[in-house]
Amino acid sequence: MTRIVYVNGDYLPEDAARVSVFDRGFLFADAVYEVTSVLGGRLIDFDGHAARLERSLGELGMPMPMPRDSLLAVHRDLVARNSIEDGLIYLQVTRGAADRDFAYPDADTPQTVVLFTQAKPGLADTPAAREGIRVVSLPDLRWGRRDIKTVQLLYPSMAKMEARARGADDAWMIEDGAVTEGTSNNAYIVKDGRIVTRGLGHEILSGITRAAVLRLAREAQMQIEERPFTLDEARAADEAFVTSASAFVLPVIEIDGAAVGGGTPGPVARRLREIYIDESRRAAL
Amino acid sequence: MTRIVYVNGDYLPEDAARVSVFDRGFLFADAVYEVTSVLGGRLIDFDGHAARLERSLGELGMPMPMPRDSLLAVHRDLVARNSIEDGLIYLQVTRGAADRDFAYPDADTPQTVVLFTQAKPGLADTPAAREGIRVVSLPDLRWGRRDIKTVQLLYPSMAKMEARARGADDAWMIEDGAVTEGTSNNAYIVKDGRIVTRGLGHEILSGITRAAVLRLAREAQMQIEERPFTLDEARAADEAFVTSASAFVLPVIEIDGAAVGGGTPGPVARRLREIYIDESRRAAL
Repeated sequence: MTRIVYVNGDYLPEDAARVSVFDRGFLFADAVYEVTSVLGGRLIDFDGHAARLERSLGELGMPMPMPRDSLLAVHRDLVARNSIEDGLIYLQVTRGAADRDFAYPDADTPQTVVLFTQAKPGLADTPAAREGIRVVSLPDLRWGRRDIKTVQLLYPSMAKMEARARGADDAWMIEDGAVTEGTSNNAYIVKDGRIVTRGLGHEILSGITRAAVLRLAREAQMQIEERPFTLDEARAADEAFVTSASAFVLPVIEIDGAAVGGGTPGPVARRLREIYIDESRRAAL
Repeated sequence: MTRIVYVNGDYLPEDAARVSVFDRGFLFADAVYEVTSVLGGRLIDFDGHAARLERSLGELGMPMPMPRDSLLAVHRDLVARNSIEDGLIYLQVTRGAADRDFAYPDADTPQTVVLFTQAKPGLADTPAAREGIRVVSLPDLRWGRRDIKTVQLLYPSMAKMEARARGADDAWMIEDGAVTEGTSNNAYIVKDGRIVTRGLGHEILSGITRAAVLRLAREAQMQIEERPFTLDEARAADEAFVTSASAFVLPVIEIDGAAVGGGTPGPVARRLREIYIDESRRAAL
C-alpha cells in the first residue's frame, strides 16, 4: 500500500496518516463523511456530496472546513497523486481533538479533515451489477437521525456481517414493519411498472445517487411512488434494487432466500443503471 | 498538557498519541470503551469494568486485547506515570486499522488499545454532588444496543449540549413514555422510601456503579423496584438521582425546570453516595 492520504492540509503516505487519540471522531463518533465515486479519473456528483456534507455538518453545529472549490481541489489532487482511474474518494470531517468531554469543545477547535482514495478498477461493471445481489432482512437498530451521514456505522457493519453469515451480500433493515434502507444504500422495489422507494425523513439517508436516479427515472417517464414499503410487498415485487454513490444501481435478486421476480436482474434496474452511469460520466468533474 | 498516554504497548506524550486514519474506531465507531475512577491513587471497581469490557467486546465478536492482569498493570502504570491522585482512566479498544470496508477485517488484524488519564482533583466531593444537578427530558434517539458500551456517543453528546442550552446540566432520555437513562449515567427515583430504576436490557447500559449501588442499597435494607418509570412519576418523586463510574451518585434536584421533592439533594441519594464512596475506597485496587 502506497496511497497518499490527505490529513489537515498535508499529503502523507498512508502509514503516516494519523489522527490524535483525542479526536472526537475516534472518541465520540462526532464526525460525518462522504464517499464520491471516480470514473475515468473524474468525480461523480461532487456538488451533491459537497452539499450534503454541508447539511450534515450544519445539523451537528459544525461549519464546512473549507470552501467548495478548495474541497474540489483536494479531491482532484488525490485522484492525480494516486492515479485513480476508477475508484472512490472517502472524506471525513470531525469536530477536532480536545480533552474528552461529552460537551463540545470550544468552537475554535480546529476540525479534522481526512480524505483518502480507494482504487476500484472496473467500478462501473462489477459482477454484482451484472448478476444482482442477495439481501436478508434485519431489524433496523440504528439511531434516529440517519439523515445525518455520521460515522456511527457499527450497526450497518454488524448487519453486513450477519448478511454474509447467512450467505447473502447485504441486509435490508426493517422498522415498524417497513423497509428503511440497505446497510449503505437506498432500497427500491418495482411493481407493475411503478418504482416504490421510501420518502426522505430522519429514517433514511438522503442518497445523492437516489436523487439523481429518481430524477432520471422521471425524465424517462417512469412512475415513482415515494412511500414506505413492507417486506411482503418486496417479496411480491417484479424487481428490487438499491442505489449508492459507490455501487450506482444494483439489482436485488433475492430477499431472505426467496427470488424476487424472475430471480435475475430486472429491466428497470438495468436501464436505470445504464442511464445513471452514462449521465454521471457526462456530468463528471 | 504533558500526559503520558498508552497506545498499543507504547507510553507516549499525549501529542504523539495517535492512531491510523484507517482505524475502525475512527471510520466506523467500531470500538468499545470503559472509564474507571481513581480515588487516592487507587482504581475503583476495576474488575467490574474489565468484566464489562470483555462482555462488550464479545457482543461485537472481539476478544480481550490482553489478560486482566496486564490490563490492571497498564492502568496502574498510567496512574503512576501521570501522578493521578483523583481522576479517571479512559480505555478504548477498537477492531484495528484496515482498508475501509463495512465488512470486518481479518480476525488477525491487531486491535487498537488506547488508555489515557484525566486528573480530577476533588472527584469525590464536587459541587454537583453537594448541590445536585438539573436535568431536562429529551427523546432517546440512540441505537438499539445500548448495553454494549460503544463509542457511538454522538447523540448523548448532542443531548448534553441541548441540556446546557436549556440551562440544565444533563438530559434524561425518554423512549416509549419511560425514562431510559441519562446521557452517561443510570437514572433513579425514590418514592415513599422505594428506589425505582429501570431493569437491565438492550435499552440501557449495565452500569458498574449501578450494580454496586443497588447491592449496597439492598444491604442497607432499602427497597428496590427494577422497572421502567415515566417522567410523570419522576416529577412526582420524593427524590431523583443518577449513578456513573465517574460521578458516583449525584442527586437530581430539578427535571424540566420543576423541582424534585424539596428541590435539594435528598437523604437517600446522599446516603448512597456516602456508602458507595466509602465502600469503593475500601475495595479499590
